[in-house]
Amino acid sequence: MTDLHPPVLAVSTVIFALRPDVESGFMTLWLPLVRRTRDPYLGLWALPGGWLPPEEELSTAAASTLRETTGLSPKYLEQLYTFGDLSRSPGSRVVSIVYWALVQSTEADLAAVDENVQWFPADRLPELAFDHNHIVEYALWRLRTKVEYSRIAHAFLGETFTLAQLRDVHEAVLRRALDPANFRRMIESTGTVVDTGLRLAGVPHRPPRLYRYNDSHSIAEGPLGSTVGWPETPLQTTPHSPRSTT
Amino acid sequence: MTDLHPPVLAVSTVIFALRPDVESGFMTLWLPLVRRTRDPYLGLWALPGGWLPPEEELSTAAASTLRETTGLSPKYLEQLYTFGDLSRSPGSRVVSIVYWALVQSTEADLAAVDENVQWFPADRLPELAFDHNHIVEYALWRLRTKVEYSRIAHAFLGETFTLAQLRDVHEAVLRRALDPANFRRMIESTGTVVDTGLRLAGVPHRPPRLYRYNDSHSIAEGPLGSTVGWPETPLQTTPHSPRSTT
Repeated sequence: MTDLHPPVLAVSTVIFALRPDVESGFMTLWLPLVRRTRDPYLGLWALPGGWLPPEEELSTAAASTLRETTGLSPKYLEQLYTFGDLSRSPGSRVVSIVYWALVQSTEADLAAVDENVQWFPADRLPELAFDHNHIVEYALWRLRTKVEYSRIAHAFLGETFTLAQLRDVHEAVLRRALDPANFRRMIESTGTVVDTGLRLAGVPHRPPRLYRYNDSHSIAEGPLGSTVGWPETPLQTTPHSPRSTT
Repeated sequence: MTDLHPPVLAVSTVIFALRPDVESGFMTLWLPLVRRTRDPYLGLWALPGGWLPPEEELSTAAASTLRETTGLSPKYLEQLYTFGDLSRSPGSRVVSIVYWALVQSTEADLAAVDENVQWFPADRLPELAFDHNHIVEYALWRLRTKVEYSRIAHAFLGETFTLAQLRDVHEAVLRRALDPANFRRMIESTGTVVDTGLRLAGVPHRPPRLYRYNDSHSIAEGPLGSTVGWPETPLQTTPHSPRSTT
């Protein structure tokens, strides 16, 4: 399809959380989807998103979509890629600026869901609206090849965590089992985590040690500033119903 | 500034080539800029770009801009980032999808220039139109932190090259001198280059060896496909005068 109207702009989000797989019990990546309530693709699941409001910063629009869909604040929100293929949307041309967010699984458990918002395992998605299967594939590839592993893993965890919890994150992202002793050596050699001296509560026999991220282990930030934490633009508080747009 | 018109879309390009610094003679990064011939920012230099034509793929639009400005085909053309801050353009809101390209210095020497297109050293730019200084800074940061060094360096070189030429690329990008012996060991340990058995012609005494990239040393490609070489979409051949847009 093409027409000669100017392309219109949308912002969509891919929101990853770690949750146990229903069948295997292993931690896997999940993401929330929104059911389309209008054409095109009426009834299909789609990434949360919406038209870019003319007066809203890009990252603010992405954060609003995330909060409206899941009730969550992400620890990691970053621009992923802009998708603008001519064939991606029937009718008029839509260019989508896609952000991705990583949220903690404890937060994800609390996220509001209803019949039009549901979480799906990332590797067993139904056919999605538009090119959204392709977008999720691209996000998964970026997650798996991203070099700042520790930082990404951090976004899925709380302030303190056990090495087993950290290994769960790496295993879920890489989709393969990691040897616990090798993993411990690899993590210790990078110096990215610090032993807090505390141990996991509620475990009577040999409770595992709790670690935290080493804040002095700085990660190169680009001139666009930190991508961990909220964007500095003020958040809008007007609630909307979840939207899905190309 | 904000208004309630829909944001409009532009595509701009940051085109890097390696050329000798005029003063020091060392290889440094240069980029072509286009002089603005209308308001806003009349007379200032800007990144080559233009409005996104409704019927053109994003990468095709970026490639057209590049060819119209410099007459060059890039070996490396990739989407960099989408800039959409409310304050980046006076008047109506413009969201710019920015691509970056790396070209060979021998090609860059042949590039068409006139009074409205000139090459500038990347670290000594004048004040540019819009947020274009900021965009160039971001592109330089990405270039310097990019992990696929060898692949990036490749885009600046011909099919065969000496280790000194390869070191020139690394030094220009990193902006620091590298020890030749350490550099040789580092490159040899990665297995990314192969000795062709040939030597540089025209050098009578101990001509240096020529290397080429090891094609079997595969680099992870994303589901968006290779970013080296031309996009697969057919190139448009209608010539335009160089444009610059937000």
